[in-house]
Amino acid sequence: MSTQSEFSLIDSYFTGTTSERDDVILGIGDDCALLQCPADHVVAVSIDTLVSGVHFFADVDAETLGHKSLAVGLSDLAAMGAKPAWFTLAITLPDSNEAWLQGFSQGLSKLANRHNIQLVGGDTTKGPLTISIQVHGFVKAEQALCRNQAQAGDLIYVSGSLGDAGAALQLKLDQWHDEQLTEQDLQYLIQRLEKPTPRNGLGIKLRDYATSAIDISDGLSSDLGHILNKSGFGATINLAELPLSAALKKIPHETAAQFALNSGDDYELCFTIPAARQQEFESQFANECSLIGTIEAKHGLRIIQLDGQQQIMTGAGGYDHFSA
Amino acid sequence: MSTQSEFSLIDSYFTGTTSERDDVILGIGDDCALLQCPADHVVAVSIDTLVSGVHFFADVDAETLGHKSLAVGLSDLAAMGAKPAWFTLAITLPDSNEAWLQGFSQGLSKLANRHNIQLVGGDTTKGPLTISIQVHGFVKAEQALCRNQAQAGDLIYVSGSLGDAGAALQLKLDQWHDEQLTEQDLQYLIQRLEKPTPRNGLGIKLRDYATSAIDISDGLSSDLGHILNKSGFGATINLAELPLSAALKKIPHETAAQFALNSGDDYELCFTIPAARQQEFESQFANECSLIGTIEAKHGLRIIQLDGQQQIMTGAGGYDHFSA
Repeated sequence: MSTQSEFSLIDSYFTGTTSERDDVILGIGDDCALLQCPADHVVAVSIDTLVSGVHFFADVDAETLGHKSLAVGLSDLAAMGAKPAWFTLAITLPDSNEAWLQGFSQGLSKLANRHNIQLVGGDTTKGPLTISIQVHGFVKAEQALCRNQAQAGDLIYVSGSLGDAGAALQLKLDQWHDEQLTEQDLQYLIQRLEKPTPRNGLGIKLRDYATSAIDISDGLSSDLGHILNKSGFGATINLAELPLSAALKKIPHETAAQFALNSGDDYELCFTIPAARQQEFESQFANECSLIGTIEAKHGLRIIQLDGQQQIMTGAGGYDHFSA
Repeated sequence: MSTQSEFSLIDSYFTGTTSERDDVILGIGDDCALLQCPADHVVAVSIDTLVSGVHFFADVDAETLGHKSLAVGLSDLAAMGAKPAWFTLAITLPDSNEAWLQGFSQGLSKLANRHNIQLVGGDTTKGPLTISIQVHGFVKAEQALCRNQAQAGDLIYVSGSLGDAGAALQLKLDQWHDEQLTEQDLQYLIQRLEKPTPRNGLGIKLRDYATSAIDISDGLSSDLGHILNKSGFGATINLAELPLSAALKKIPHETAAQFALNSGDDYELCFTIPAARQQEFESQFANECSLIGTIEAKHGLRIIQLDGQQQIMTGAGGYDHFSA
């Protein structure tokens, strides 16, 4: 209902910025993109929206936001064991700011090109800053890492370190600080919040091992809870085993462990491996993954605290989503 | 950055409301949906965003908005000759209003079930009302109706009637009125704006005839302009031949013709047919499609006015989009 002619220019910031794939029969510029899925594979799709003031600070650097907007979707593909292929971008902007658009597009395309994922279409509209990205990837149906296939006795692993993004968010909100953290530590933590690294390489390798997987966007307790609910099992995890970064190892263990257990936005993977394959798995992945617990027949999520006491999680700490 | 636990309820308004398709290997509820594309077909995808106050009135009925949000995407599939299959919904809402969600979901699912298109995933977030829907359909690559394949000498057709939605928008904005319009006429026009009928049945049949196609979302002059630009040709169209509804036939022809030429949101199809197939095509489609002009080697869009004078369109009247 308002003319959007200024927005025609926006195309130029996105068209041709990502690598060209052979399976894109028709890209940006028609009523639809036309995409060729490889035989024997299914298409994995996920859409995520980031809203200014809800998912990111209104003053966040545009390049950083471009990175994060795509990273969130790539992380969903990683959690499914799917190989990234294409994405679409629906962006709503209050105005057409050239510097902002260039920065955003750079952050987006840099990460896209690293993962060989091509922008194939989109929609630009005028309104409050909102970014929706839908990612598409390939996986053989029988190799997809679903949430509902964990088995009692499976071992629970996570990639990387947990709690960094949650600590960074509290720092940025001025709700928490620790004097032990150096300027370098703070920069590291903020980087983990604002420019997360989706674990797509690991996700694809996990096809050969994992019975289930999820990415940690809402928080370990919440996201592991999804695996437990969908699989119909419970679990015990050991708080002392949650992997911490060098930065979070400097703060009181109890605080760091709570960040690791409950805070979101780390975009690490949480997944389950049959116990019989522990040695084989760890010989290859011990450097990047940590064993944190076990899937059990008994329902509920039990946490062995740092003092050795066991507690039962009754609710999740993180976000709730209508996901996929 | 704000907890969204209330939004967990929203899933229930959308899960299971659309028909279940065999090619949905995994639907809502995991990191990704898993979708099976039929062999020998490509996937046609398009994403569109509707923003409150830009694409619809903030006080629009929720059921109506649910319908329109999906209709816009279905229309893109129609314009491509693609058969609807799946869609995702990214919805940003200021609050979790039960009556609104039920209405929206009903409007959405009613239209979805009519077209056998299944909701396979989404994201619900808190913020200013914004709706992004991505649709997916199937078409054989060689049968897809692209914008760039019109040929000099092809005849230009449009489906249905034009200008109704544009007239309705002016009525709603109190920027225009005509005393000849009855209450029934007004209701018809508003319905055309708020609950457009995507032409998917026609789009699929056009695979056998059309050299190019587009849906009229921005206005005939603007959308036909896309075909001309992409195909590298010009055209002459006859204003007197633009099809008008019974309602618009009651108002001065000059006014009605301008609505039909320049206003958007009709979601009719504009397409081109080789002249040699005119008789064959019209024997089947004369009731629902109108011949309005001819593709010509000479660049530019020429309009034969109602008085027989010829004018050249120098600019488009409608929206500009970053489309697909």
